[in-house]
Amino acid sequence: MLGEIDHIGVAVEDLDESIALYRDRLGMREQHRETVEEFGVEAALLEIGGAHVELLTPVAADSAVARFLERSGPGMHHVAYRTEDIDAALARLSEAGVRMLDEQPRAGIRGSRVAFLHPKSTGGVLTEIVQPSEGDHG
Amino acid sequence: MLGEIDHIGVAVEDLDESIALYRDRLGMREQHRETVEEFGVEAALLEIGGAHVELLTPVAADSAVARFLERSGPGMHHVAYRTEDIDAALARLSEAGVRMLDEQPRAGIRGSRVAFLHPKSTGGVLTEIVQPSEGDHG
Repeated sequence: MLGEIDHIGVAVEDLDESIALYRDRLGMREQHRETVEEFGVEAALLEIGGAHVELLTPVAADSAVARFLERSGPGMHHVAYRTEDIDAALARLSEAGVRMLDEQPRAGIRGSRVAFLHPKSTGGVLTEIVQPSEGDHG
Repeated sequence: MLGEIDHIGVAVEDLDESIALYRDRLGMREQHRETVEEFGVEAALLEIGGAHVELLTPVAADSAVARFLERSGPGMHHVAYRTEDIDAALARLSEAGVRMLDEQPRAGIRGSRVAFLHPKSTGGVLTEIVQPSEGDHG
């Protein structure tokens, strides 16, 4: 149903400063940077093994990441698991009784399709499932 | 310096209930369960690809996980990256200016050696590095 960990999402105040920290101090390669309108964030992907750290900073004041930063400050925001077929995964999760925040997939970073599960169904962890775009398995 | 994501650590109130949730609803296999005296927790590892979800519940009232639950409630507690040589990794992280919570490795789950980085050096994310025991690369 769920594959590898695709990424952990980290909410940050200053994207450039955080990229420098993960790249220069922790030794992760910056792989991609994009404003993801659907979620009101600017995001950067730092490569770690076959997964990523996704650094997120709000570009919209009403975005979930902006609210998270106000409430909790910078830190771990979500974990994402990869799936090859997000529609099938959503159907199976719903059958298993998992509550969803997104009933339908949304447009994620790098052309991916993503959906969030309700933290009540995951022990308080905001959890995303992500189907990478064709040809993008990095 | 840092390898794959080894696991995400999740602080939970009820270990059995949380294992059931990750196993039966999210479809992850329960792989290991252990009381880790060094950290005052009982932990369970749920397999996801080559990584794990580590569910943690306190067995000591003064443990970091107990304090985390009191302050924040259940949820994502830390992320851990794998390394083949934790002594070399700690030396390189210190050279790079990363602040550590543990200057020396401690005894982690399944005979691993682990150390925690200071969240101030990782954008607010409690970050662990882990050297699995010989013969344990799962």
